[in-house]
Amino acid sequence: MTAPTRVVVIGADAAGMSAAHQALRTARRTGRELAITVLDKGTHTSYSACGIPYLMAGDVASAEDLVARSGDAHRDAGIDLRMSTEVVSADLSARTVTTDGGDVLEYDELVVATGAPAVVPDWALRPDGTPYGGVGTVKTLDDGASWLERFAEVGDGGHVVVVGAGYVGVEVAEAALRKGFGVTVLTRTRGMSMLEDEMSDLVNVGLCDAGIELVLGAEVTGLELDGDRVTGVHWDGGTRDADLVVVAIGVRPATAFLEGQVELTDGGALRPDPHGRVADHVWAAGDCCEVRRRLDDEWVFRPLGTHANKHGRALGDSLAGGSLTFDGMTDTSITRFSYGEVHLEIARTGLSRSDAEAAGHEPVALLTEGTTASGYMPEAEPIALWVMADRTTRRLLGVQVVGGHGAGKRIDAAAAVLWAGGTVDDLAWMDLAYAPPFSTAWEILQVAARRVAERL
Amino acid sequence: MTAPTRVVVIGADAAGMSAAHQALRTARRTGRELAITVLDKGTHTSYSACGIPYLMAGDVASAEDLVARSGDAHRDAGIDLRMSTEVVSADLSARTVTTDGGDVLEYDELVVATGAPAVVPDWALRPDGTPYGGVGTVKTLDDGASWLERFAEVGDGGHVVVVGAGYVGVEVAEAALRKGFGVTVLTRTRGMSMLEDEMSDLVNVGLCDAGIELVLGAEVTGLELDGDRVTGVHWDGGTRDADLVVVAIGVRPATAFLEGQVELTDGGALRPDPHGRVADHVWAAGDCCEVRRRLDDEWVFRPLGTHANKHGRALGDSLAGGSLTFDGMTDTSITRFSYGEVHLEIARTGLSRSDAEAAGHEPVALLTEGTTASGYMPEAEPIALWVMADRTTRRLLGVQVVGGHGAGKRIDAAAAVLWAGGTVDDLAWMDLAYAPPFSTAWEILQVAARRVAERL
Repeated sequence: MTAPTRVVVIGADAAGMSAAHQALRTARRTGRELAITVLDKGTHTSYSACGIPYLMAGDVASAEDLVARSGDAHRDAGIDLRMSTEVVSADLSARTVTTDGGDVLEYDELVVATGAPAVVPDWALRPDGTPYGGVGTVKTLDDGASWLERFAEVGDGGHVVVVGAGYVGVEVAEAALRKGFGVTVLTRTRGMSMLEDEMSDLVNVGLCDAGIELVLGAEVTGLELDGDRVTGVHWDGGTRDADLVVVAIGVRPATAFLEGQVELTDGGALRPDPHGRVADHVWAAGDCCEVRRRLDDEWVFRPLGTHANKHGRALGDSLAGGSLTFDGMTDTSITRFSYGEVHLEIARTGLSRSDAEAAGHEPVALLTEGTTASGYMPEAEPIALWVMADRTTRRLLGVQVVGGHGAGKRIDAAAAVLWAGGTVDDLAWMDLAYAPPFSTAWEILQVAARRVAERL
Repeated sequence: MTAPTRVVVIGADAAGMSAAHQALRTARRTGRELAITVLDKGTHTSYSACGIPYLMAGDVASAEDLVARSGDAHRDAGIDLRMSTEVVSADLSARTVTTDGGDVLEYDELVVATGAPAVVPDWALRPDGTPYGGVGTVKTLDDGASWLERFAEVGDGGHVVVVGAGYVGVEVAEAALRKGFGVTVLTRTRGMSMLEDEMSDLVNVGLCDAGIELVLGAEVTGLELDGDRVTGVHWDGGTRDADLVVVAIGVRPATAFLEGQVELTDGGALRPDPHGRVADHVWAAGDCCEVRRRLDDEWVFRPLGTHANKHGRALGDSLAGGSLTFDGMTDTSITRFSYGEVHLEIARTGLSRSDAEAAGHEPVALLTEGTTASGYMPEAEPIALWVMADRTTRRLLGVQVVGGHGAGKRIDAAAAVLWAGGTVDDLAWMDLAYAPPFSTAWEILQVAARRVAERL
């Protein structure tokens, strides 16, 4: 009888725990014996970071509801899970990791699933490196709990400044509105800058219609303070009093402990192969990694739970002798902005125009407006679709959607065409579902595709 | 200068008018000259037959709202449109059609887009061939208007018996409930028999939960009459008092005038090629035709507006010298049943289990239950998915959905995979959109696909 393979996983969230559980499942099939230890510096395992804005908004009753699987459930599955345990260094040649408690763990296989903490700019930090009072990010369950406390402290009539207008910024702005606060959103670029300009404009209008003060092209220069508590925000074009400041300007891979030992991108990300390998006996998945975009074979940083789950699963399977692979993605994402009369579903898949040009395509793109259901139905709400294809090959390159109820998940049909490498004609002619409560007789996604097809 | 090509189109609804307008558009590009005459026996052109149940329910304010394009709008586009003009015979060798008014029209190209009137069984008919009082079908705008009148006459507390539990039967049952009537649905088979048994069962439960008396396996044997007005329905297992009886047992192609001159199926349908041709100088599209299912290359009768529009468009383009084709379908359809606390979105695409077996596949299918959004979100509603794949090739063969808000249009992503000939692994691993209000972290469609993938 051989000794079990010692697997150390760093990070107990989507990627790490998907990997661990899949490895155990596959090992039962392949007959391998694994001893899996998972180390995490935090206090909560397997929680939905994506759900935190909805916790802040009051949609979710308690932080515990966001925990998909408790620590004990993982331990019951045979995983040696150690929370509040940070890995401070790793020696990949000696195959050891060292924890903040001074423990040195030997491994046969190392899985890096450390994720990506929120970026906090210098202006938000006290000299001791902690954020000023009333200032914070939105990443961990503890962050979510802190915001609920801060919201309660400030009470009705307070004003929240959100810095950043990406997914998290927009979702938190919705949460703050629904909690009764005045809201200012500051962005260096524009609302949802992962959208093309003309689609981003629709989001900007929706944010303003909902009563948000939206400032585009704003670079924050500093905070107004009362003691060490924030009372206002300065940017290059103005100032706004603020009771609370949410910093939502992005995240950065937690890979500093690997520097000099494996290849990292300028942004600090790993680039694992489809099985999750980054080096001999070293594997990685999740937000600490870039992901390969199948459409142009580019590596991009898209720290999304859906990629983390899929790549974690392929990694776990491969580590235990299976053959599953994560064969990249098509750059799909979705969110919602909903407050009062405004309900916008916002989604994209595929390349942007500049991505497409960089990849050597000759992109042709059009914006098409219509309704989510037949115009005579009470369900009908406005929807705008941006569709882009290559002039020569007719290949579908990208689709973006902004619209009312039922608009957002329409992106999935486009994502499926992109996954298959299909053309804009495939999108225009394939057999999508029609009934009056669900679409127009020509589904708007197909009208939009047809219009582009006619321009090629 | 040559004389224009004389095109006679029979039928002024989706297929016929799509063909006529596309022919004119393409002719401008190809330089052809067309003189298009459209003959229709009805009084309304280009209306949404699919919208009639929603007119009956009161969702749509007036029948006029269902008219997509008025007769005058068609005439303004240069089409010689003649309503209330029935074609009673055609002579394909002489290239003439004869109308009920005795006019004989010569044509160079004939487009048959006569649709498919509702089937009315003998038990519903007086000796003179018209339905008894209080009995009718749901097909034309005039039918819709008649039902509104009958509903008003009967008033609150009346009882409606719906015969048939397919798309129209279920939609009309919803309409009658919402108008305050008691509703009995009689079906020879089961609720939505185009679904697999286990999915159909979910619909049956929903109909009953909404207060419908649903009788499965019921063969209607006759009516109870007071004079020539219905007062009840007899079936092989019982009797029910009824103020109104809706006959929704299907439709039949209106092709009798072509018998002996072109090939018709036993059901009376035409089978046009991808350009819409059925014989020299004879074209057809829409509900009078069968459509080719790409997955098994079988011809099936699916009288749906979405096929009519697409095939009409390809036909019109081809007729005017273009090259567009309608390359079949994947058997996608969708409907909704919504009343009180019950909201079911019902959709299917691809083959049934028996279709798959007939095509020589070894199908593996599983039912998977989950939620439409992350479980902690208020948007989360139950959803059930049936996914079927071939054991050897792993090809995706069919998907069916029954669930709450947001469930139905999920079918489109599966339809896109089927269109591309993809596998169940494609469905499981492709990049579908995730955010908590829209899906679980593993989109339920992908969980369902993964479960099937693991059984192959």
